Amino acid sequence: MKNRIITISREFGSGGRTIGKKVAEKLGILCYDSELIEKVASESGFNANYIKDAGEYAPGGFLSSAFSHRSSGPNNADYLWTIQYKIITELAEKGPCVIVGRCADYILREKADCLRVFIHADLSFRAERIVKEYGEREESPEQRLKDKDKRRAAYHRFYTNMKWGHAQNYDVTLNSGTLGIDKCVDIIKELY
Amino acid sequence: MKNRIITISREFGSGGRTIGKKVAEKLGILCYDSELIEKVASESGFNANYIKDAGEYAPGGFLSSAFSHRSSGPNNADYLWTIQYKIITELAEKGPCVIVGRCADYILREKADCLRVFIHADLSFRAERIVKEYGEREESPEQRLKDKDKRRAAYHRFYTNMKWGHAQNYDVTLNSGTLGIDKCVDIIKELY
Repeated sequence: MKNRIITISREFGSGGRTIGKKVAEKLGILCYDSELIEKVASESGFNANYIKDAGEYAPGGFLSSAFSHRSSGPNNADYLWTIQYKIITELAEKGPCVIVGRCADYILREKADCLRVFIHADLSFRAERIVKEYGEREESPEQRLKDKDKRRAAYHRFYTNMKWGHAQNYDVTLNSGTLGIDKCVDIIKELY
Repeated sequence: MKNRIITISREFGSGGRTIGKKVAEKLGILCYDSELIEKVASESGFNANYIKDAGEYAPGGFLSSAFSHRSSGPNNADYLWTIQYKIITELAEKGPCVIVGRCADYILREKADCLRVFIHADLSFRAERIVKEYGEREESPEQRLKDKDKRRAAYHRFYTNMKWGHAQNYDVTLNSGTLGIDKCVDIIKELY
């Protein structure tokens, strides 16, 4: 019997991580996000922050991957992908849990009984949220969001060949901006 | 005060129409689908079946619209679009309701308080369903589904310039194949 897992993909600033944590709390199961990154870090020997960044860059640099010939064999990002793949598979075997990001939906597509969730919200909702959560930066929040989304989409596309944010790739997609974070939590809990 | 409306876009065979009707029943509000087409028909003087077909063909013929110069002014499909636009706007003003298809999400984007829903399911679920609902045809159910989806996407794109099936265009998207028709009904009812 496969474990029941919730995977959450999300636009930056949409509250996907918060929603994942709240859902896990309500269901009494574990939520993996930065914890997972730490685990990847300790197993690979890489610095945690480096992995956190590399996890959202497609190999060969942002967006250049699709055009590179990759004749030089696997690079660091590929290596990380392999470790991440292995760890996510192991976590899913251990018991029911929520996994936020890291292409877990794709990695577990045949290995677990997944509820595949995508959380998004419009730019203004997310811009306000990231300033509140992460503070001001030199770049405008809108620019930070666009950059981050592009990176996530490129990374996801590179490793999974699936279109990020396409309704057809998920069991449910929710607009946290119009529905509210708590409503999203309730819906996911009800669908689990 | 704007009326609260549910708009349902859907892949052919995903059960979007059935879901719309069940939601409306449970909420005690009206659902417009074929009824709407009939109303369009009687107002425009066109034959109902002709309008039903034309409603899913982008002007100038399927997929050719984007390449045509349209120097000849509005055609029949454009005329129907205008009537449809007017009728959907009027229905939304009359009272809360569910509207299935017909780009109602786009038409009402500033005119009503909309819960924008998209229903989809994988090909095998839909293939089984359309054979059960509409019977066998000479074409395979998979081919019928692909043709119909392409038409809906092209029509939607032509008149709204929005990507059909993109999570970001909806408040909620649901996979009726994995979640089940009744669960989709419950979720939409809860979100209303």
